[in-house]
Amino acid sequence: MKARVEIRFRPGVLDPEAVAIGKALRHLGFSDVRGVERRKVLELELEAGDARTARERVERMCEALLANPVIETYRIDILD
Amino acid sequence: MKARVEIRFRPGVLDPEAVAIGKALRHLGFSDVRGVERRKVLELELEAGDARTARERVERMCEALLANPVIETYRIDILD
Repeated sequence: MKARVEIRFRPGVLDPEAVAIGKALRHLGFSDVRGVERRKVLELELEAGDARTARERVERMCEALLANPVIETYRIDILD
Repeated sequence: MKARVEIRFRPGVLDPEAVAIGKALRHLGFSDVRGVERRKVLELELEAGDARTARERVERMCEALLANPVIETYRIDILD
């Protein structure tokens, strides 16, 4: 079973890498860039009997390792 | 106008960070994890008159800075 986790910063948390990407793009002449947000996506291949179990497992993985709940939120999609 | 770029490694390119995440998960007891793939997602806020122009601009950004075409592929979605 495949699960997709999308992790993003909470609103208001500064992402210096996204700011740097925006600056670099404008420096390269892409002055039409108004803003950049960055996300992390992980696709996990799991042994799980059903989608509900898979989602619960991935939620526990997010809390334990994948996301930092202080500054990040995450969304889980079970793909098949 | 908003564009979303998803950048992933080409098949066969080793992603040490993804491997490390898989190992760490299994080490934490998530022995049901069979594989991990990592992607980068960027959401760009652009000044662009129409979706076609926006897509062309973002393609040029990918070639110039956002992706490394030797080891990465990218997909662009224009969101609105």
